Amino acid sequence: MSNEFLGEFLGTALLILLGNGVVAGVVLPKTKNHNAGWIVITAGWGLAVAIAAFAVGSLSPAHLNPAVSLAMAMSGSLPWASFGSYVLAQFLGAMFGQILVWLMYKPHYDIAENPADILGTFSTGPALRDNVSNLVSEILGTFVLVLTLLAMGTANIAAGVSTLAVSALIIGIGLSLGGTTGYAINPARDLGPRLMHSILPIAHKGDGDWSYAWIPVVGPLLGAALAVLVYGLY
Amino acid sequence: MSNEFLGEFLGTALLILLGNGVVAGVVLPKTKNHNAGWIVITAGWGLAVAIAAFAVGSLSPAHLNPAVSLAMAMSGSLPWASFGSYVLAQFLGAMFGQILVWLMYKPHYDIAENPADILGTFSTGPALRDNVSNLVSEILGTFVLVLTLLAMGTANIAAGVSTLAVSALIIGIGLSLGGTTGYAINPARDLGPRLMHSILPIAHKGDGDWSYAWIPVVGPLLGAALAVLVYGLY
Amino acid sequence: MSNEFLGEFLGTALLILLGNGVVAGVVLPKTKNHNAGWIVITAGWGLAVAIAAFAVGSLSPAHLNPAVSLAMAMSGSLPWASFGSYVLAQFLGAMFGQILVWLMYKPHYDIAENPADILGTFSTGPALRDNVSNLVSEILGTFVLVLTLLAMGTANIAAGVSTLAVSALIIGIGLSLGGTTGYAINPARDLGPRLMHSILPIAHKGDGDWSYAWIPVVGPLLGAALAVLVYGLY
Amino acid sequence: MSNEFLGEFLGTALLILLGNGVVAGVVLPKTKNHNAGWIVITAGWGLAVAIAAFAVGSLSPAHLNPAVSLAMAMSGSLPWASFGSYVLAQFLGAMFGQILVWLMYKPHYDIAENPADILGTFSTGPALRDNVSNLVSEILGTFVLVLTLLAMGTANIAAGVSTLAVSALIIGIGLSLGGTTGYAINPARDLGPRLMHSILPIAHKGDGDWSYAWIPVVGPLLGAALAVLVYGLY
Repeated sequence: MSNEFLGEFLGTALLILLGNGVVAGVVLPKTKNHNAGWIVITAGWGLAVAIAAFAVGSLSPAHLNPAVSLAMAMSGSLPWASFGSYVLAQFLGAMFGQILVWLMYKPHYDIAENPADILGTFSTGPALRDNVSNLVSEILGTFVLVLTLLAMGTANIAAGVSTLAVSALIIGIGLSLGGTTGYAINPARDLGPRLMHSILPIAHKGDGDWSYAWIPVVGPLLGAALAVLVYGLY
Repeated sequence: MSNEFLGEFLGTALLILLGNGVVAGVVLPKTKNHNAGWIVITAGWGLAVAIAAFAVGSLSPAHLNPAVSLAMAMSGSLPWASFGSYVLAQFLGAMFGQILVWLMYKPHYDIAENPADILGTFSTGPALRDNVSNLVSEILGTFVLVLTLLAMGTANIAAGVSTLAVSALIIGIGLSLGGTTGYAINPARDLGPRLMHSILPIAHKGDGDWSYAWIPVVGPLLGAALAVLVYGLY
Repeated sequence: MSNEFLGEFLGTALLILLGNGVVAGVVLPKTKNHNAGWIVITAGWGLAVAIAAFAVGSLSPAHLNPAVSLAMAMSGSLPWASFGSYVLAQFLGAMFGQILVWLMYKPHYDIAENPADILGTFSTGPALRDNVSNLVSEILGTFVLVLTLLAMGTANIAAGVSTLAVSALIIGIGLSLGGTTGYAINPARDLGPRLMHSILPIAHKGDGDWSYAWIPVVGPLLGAALAVLVYGLY
Repeated sequence: MSNEFLGEFLGTALLILLGNGVVAGVVLPKTKNHNAGWIVITAGWGLAVAIAAFAVGSLSPAHLNPAVSLAMAMSGSLPWASFGSYVLAQFLGAMFGQILVWLMYKPHYDIAENPADILGTFSTGPALRDNVSNLVSEILGTFVLVLTLLAMGTANIAAGVSTLAVSALIIGIGLSLGGTTGYAINPARDLGPRLMHSILPIAHKGDGDWSYAWIPVVGPLLGAALAVLVYGLY
């Protein structure tokens, strides 16, 4: 196993452990942070990215996201030959991270009775179901993410500071653009855990809302490609 | 189109997408962050500035605000010959960014029934209507913004750190000085979206409160000029 | 007027404008951030210190606090001959900043009916009145502030980063040690505005709780001296 | 007394003063931040670590945590001969810091009537009691802490920035992994204050829940050891 594969796998596992960990804490019953609010969720996800990037940054570039890897491949920062293994590592990491969330919150899953809440600790869903608008949300969120990452990559920002800046970027996207679809902005973050939702035994889980599942995959890929095109105007 | 024009246009569009995006999320019905509170709004706006500045910082100085451009022109950092195109780019960017907010939150606008809430996702308004006090609020907020930006500009702060510091500055102004008028502190941020409010079709929108519209234009320009004068005492 | 006097005056005015500005926003009726919570107040005060320090850092060391100036004089960083003018500038700045808060929030003061809330936008007061415990609170808060500032002063922290770190320090003290007395930790921050409370005309203001006023003066000075002594053990 | 002993003692005392200080403020009755929410608790603990590290960083590496010292000894950064004195200093510091919390919040402890709330200002406890799941929570939280610290230790991050990054790490762990057991992730943080709970006179305190006390000791040590093993794969 290459260092990069290990890095993307472990980093994405940490991302999901921490990211869906905060959702599980806020959504599932009887936790200490039950209903702790949007600032907790968005800060949790933003810091999850920073922690994962700090933890595996010596192994891989910590894309942790197939949409980011796509943009880096399109813009020449990642060899296309590596793209597949990056994405595979990210999906496997997301699935493994979700197992850890389930293990850790198991007593809370055991008493959870709302299927939508349970699914929400795995994958995203729309506040109001509207294919066009939901797709626009995922495209815009990922466009902002990737355009800013591309621009940061050529700026002269010190190590550590850049990772904290990426964390601020994720928090900002969540605060501003997350309220409509829950800002997947990452196909592995959404589809990997959605698969685990099918597999893991949970008392009151419902279906996996598979008719929605293409939006948090296609939207982020389109948003990333759009960002590469716009960045090409610079 | 020059790089600077593109930078100010795109940066201001991102600023409004993210800044009015968080307001739309908190104010409009049925979002995931409905009524998420003041810390969410202020952090959202503060991070919006940082993200926009990171995204376009290689193209332009990312003023994103005619009041800032005025101060930079008065203090010699921006040639007066460029002032007009900066302001034009900022207004066009603000209007374009608002279109994106509307597109993204369209299903939520469709069910919004409170005209004041709808207008609040476009432009600012006073908590208590009082011309003198409201003008003082906008002057003070922009004075703090511009004085601190001028001082930061001559301090030896590393790239990245300075952008995060500007974000902290915006969050601080919002927390401390935003509760009276909603801290426009930026003519383009207020007037551009107010124009779009007139144009875009929204079911229950009311009037654009145009009698108030001069305050978030004049106040910021006065505050910026005052900051240049005080900074001249240094 | 020396640069240092101007810096301490203007910096403390900004500190109080922003610090008591956030309290006024959260406490006074009909603001947009009414009852916005402890995270808003503590973040507001912490960012107020950073903004003030960024704004005047080229003029003075931005002590903005007689307890800090005392510690710096005791430890040799500030000539004792300058101590008096620093403290004078800080008190005058605090009083001037409070006038700005009053001007900006005047329509809200006009409708405020709770004297304790009004006083709370000027100076601090105890959650439970207990001289020993209240004094301990102010001593401990200022001890943590000054010990950490002294240690940071000799660490090799880049400009900008150190100012943000001081902001984090103030937020941390507020979150952890502010819930008992409202963490004055600064004689000028408390006594200056308390004097203005006597002077400014406000409809329903009550008395200035002068029997408590010595605690947020003596406590911070004792805490600062204690920190200098402990830092001497290093 | 060596500098390192003083540093670990004083740093852990500050950590507990600030960390359990924020819990006391949120949990005990009649404070200004009563029921201020999860973001206040997690930010308070995260900033507590940063403040303690800034304050004593010139004396010791500021482990402030026997699990961290164990990992550093296992990975060769701390001589095993020093391990015992580090742990002793950390436990004594935690106990001393708790005395300061008790002194400062004494009027609030005097009127507190809920034994579980009182114990919660000393040591952690499970949201739902389940030995396996609770142990998993403490293992995972500490694993993330130590793996990231080990990786940060070899990255080229500037002084100050790294301390702020550690603060972000602690906040992130608290937000995402703290809702089940209250994230002790530190044997001294939990066991030291639990001992003080037995000793200090408090009117309505109950028992110290000693049957749970092994989990926040064993879990963090296992999590730290696991992180060292995984980091060995890098």
